[in-house]
Amino acid sequence: MNDPSHLARCAQLAMVLEVAAHPKPGNVDRDHDFPDTTFEHFLASAVGTYPVLEEAARSRTGAGALIHAAAEESLRWQRGGNTHFGAFVLLIPLLMAAGSKTQASKIVLDTTSEDAVEFYRAFSIANVRIDSVPDFDLGESNSADRILEDGVKLFDLMKLSADHDLIANEWVSGFERTNWCADMITKKADTMSINDAIVCTFLRMLAETPDTFIRTKFGRDKSIEVSERASEVIRGSMDLASIKSEVHEFDEQLIREKANPGSTADIIIGGLFVALVRGLRV
Amino acid sequence: MNDPSHLARCAQLAMVLEVAAHPKPGNVDRDHDFPDTTFEHFLASAVGTYPVLEEAARSRTGAGALIHAAAEESLRWQRGGNTHFGAFVLLIPLLMAAGSKTQASKIVLDTTSEDAVEFYRAFSIANVRIDSVPDFDLGESNSADRILEDGVKLFDLMKLSADHDLIANEWVSGFERTNWCADMITKKADTMSINDAIVCTFLRMLAETPDTFIRTKFGRDKSIEVSERASEVIRGSMDLASIKSEVHEFDEQLIREKANPGSTADIIIGGLFVALVRGLRV
Repeated sequence: MNDPSHLARCAQLAMVLEVAAHPKPGNVDRDHDFPDTTFEHFLASAVGTYPVLEEAARSRTGAGALIHAAAEESLRWQRGGNTHFGAFVLLIPLLMAAGSKTQASKIVLDTTSEDAVEFYRAFSIANVRIDSVPDFDLGESNSADRILEDGVKLFDLMKLSADHDLIANEWVSGFERTNWCADMITKKADTMSINDAIVCTFLRMLAETPDTFIRTKFGRDKSIEVSERASEVIRGSMDLASIKSEVHEFDEQLIREKANPGSTADIIIGGLFVALVRGLRV
Repeated sequence: MNDPSHLARCAQLAMVLEVAAHPKPGNVDRDHDFPDTTFEHFLASAVGTYPVLEEAARSRTGAGALIHAAAEESLRWQRGGNTHFGAFVLLIPLLMAAGSKTQASKIVLDTTSEDAVEFYRAFSIANVRIDSVPDFDLGESNSADRILEDGVKLFDLMKLSADHDLIANEWVSGFERTNWCADMITKKADTMSINDAIVCTFLRMLAETPDTFIRTKFGRDKSIEVSERASEVIRGSMDLASIKSEVHEFDEQLIREKANPGSTADIIIGGLFVALVRGLRV
């Protein structure tokens, strides 16, 4: 089942199921739109990027250009701006590796400075909010030249961000959190609906790892505080039904504060993709 | 924009947006599952059938085999049983025609008795509830032989059902309702969200045309009664917001009565597909 079309559909479905899952505190889901970015924008982006996802599943090199192409295709299909940039950064190497963390780790290690330049281009069109990377200010137009001159690989850039960026951290540390999510979703889906398995895994992940998106918007302390609140919400629970009102309240709080754990959602997408490739069925 | 991949993604997105739209009285949507068939089953079916949709967009003959292949692929991706059989019967000729009603009408007119046999095979695996077609009882295993011997084309079978089956009627009368839906969704999407444009068009369609699915389950009188109720709900309304509580109440009524206007939803999918092909963007 590792044919490129199958893998691309697993990636589409991972994005669709993730955004549909509810209540998913702080993020866009079937019950919550953001002012400029709606549930339907995420659905259209997930569906529209199919050809790039399939091309990734056929490729062993060119991760940067594929991330760039996915970001472009996503914007062609919807008018809500950036929906899946972090998800593409995670999904593209996983697609190239047919879901194997060992293969994906080799693929990211082999990235080049051309990949880094393409990544910067993708970044600027997706209009993503990030901490500036120390040595290569993304706002500076001559960064691309400097990257090529210095021979900086995309993997090197990810290393610079790995201590404060969840997705970069996956690239440089063997896609461990993604796999942890895949295992947890698969296990939970044995005893609960796929929706509840996703939401419970999302909360568990958020409780254990402060979210990059929130850190970038509000600073480290806020991201830690949100994780502590996630931890309180899920403490001792075995299923979603028993904590539904607490989860709803947490959701409303985060939406009021505009604190959306977008990077946690990206890891969930990666985990869902790996789980679907391994045979998880809705 | 008529390349096969673009057309296939328009078909996927049409199915995804249709099932997401809410409140959609009586049917599965983001807020309502049926006991055995959930929102996620519909999402997985829409995503999973991509290769068949793309193949249809490359084909000018073989509608029956394509409908059969779509029904099979849908069941491979989810465990909720039949989700999109009627939608496939409508979408396959529209994909083959790149959304043109004139081309689609030629394509269905040119179907063969092999198409009819494949259609019967698709029917039996999808386990669809229907009125038996007068001359060819679908429960009889020798129907296939009789179809080939008698040279009955798939178009002829549709003619036999056209007076009481909405999808068959589209095949034999130029896909007019599908185009009416495409125009209405596109026009409404100028002034309201895509969700509300879909729901309003669904209600308008249901008010004007009794639903095949409801007729098959409960008889002609019931299907007319449901349409009359839809008509009352939307009477005089210009948008969804002003009639939201009436629509919710209608939704709860139909769900209690298990009266799901599934064929109306299929036409909406066809209309959304045509609108997306013509350039509608979320």
